[in-house]
Amino acid sequence: MKITLFQFGKTHLSFVDEGCVLFTKRLKHYVKFDTITLELPPKQRSADGDLVKKSEAALLLKKIQPNDYVILLDEKGKNYSSRQFAATLQTLANTHASCVFVIGGAFGFADEVYARANAQLSLSSMTFSHQVIRVLFLEQLYRAFTIIKGEPYHND
Amino acid sequence: MKITLFQFGKTHLSFVDEGCVLFTKRLKHYVKFDTITLELPPKQRSADGDLVKKSEAALLLKKIQPNDYVILLDEKGKNYSSRQFAATLQTLANTHASCVFVIGGAFGFADEVYARANAQLSLSSMTFSHQVIRVLFLEQLYRAFTIIKGEPYHND
Repeated sequence: MKITLFQFGKTHLSFVDEGCVLFTKRLKHYVKFDTITLELPPKQRSADGDLVKKSEAALLLKKIQPNDYVILLDEKGKNYSSRQFAATLQTLANTHASCVFVIGGAFGFADEVYARANAQLSLSSMTFSHQVIRVLFLEQLYRAFTIIKGEPYHND
Repeated sequence: MKITLFQFGKTHLSFVDEGCVLFTKRLKHYVKFDTITLELPPKQRSADGDLVKKSEAALLLKKIQPNDYVILLDEKGKNYSSRQFAATLQTLANTHASCVFVIGGAFGFADEVYARANAQLSLSSMTFSHQVIRVLFLEQLYRAFTIIKGEPYHND
């Protein structure tokens, strides 16, 4: 299975970038993984959240293939333990060639993105910035593969 | 109210350090806040998790004052939304002069730490490393104060 993470806008916090680089490097020992950062063209940036979500949705949906299994990282999504998340990934790997995770922009997702999604995953009942969540997610994805492989990180 | 965060062992991930410095600086605009990193003496470090937890508990409990309100960050703790967490902090600030948060070591907490605690807070149903959780927690604490003050970060 190939995993792709889509996110919106460059990171402006250097520690987030550094953490993402670290966990991406570790993750690539286990799985084919890429992060794609989508950027709205300047004239589509706006203080109107609904407009931004619409434009981001158009950008994202062009990139998603019909057979991709799409999981949104969303506060309203399902809560998993790390072990449940690992088990879900393992099942997906047996049934799908490509799994796509999406971290929304500052305003969240437009309806058409929810409509395309196959599942929603919540990392926490708390709200994290859409930048900080990038590191959290990559740490969890990496952790999931150490669980799948029975490697010791999970107790760290 | 004064807030103190206790944690065990120096951070070995530089992005975690960098994130903690960033959110600590932001947090100090709102509240008297300190992080205290406790380190076991080398001869007490061990692969035996129960022994380590016991030694860490002794170190921690010496530092905690009788009137401190002690909240453990623990997977088995209560889940809050960011707004609920902010409301809880605001209530605490009206009733307590000192609030202590504790992030356990790699093996978690000994029974005597649970016995002293006033509350337990879970940041996620997923397991994060006791290092990465430091940044998550500081981001949430900072976010809580922006919510209490009605400032705009919460929508970022």
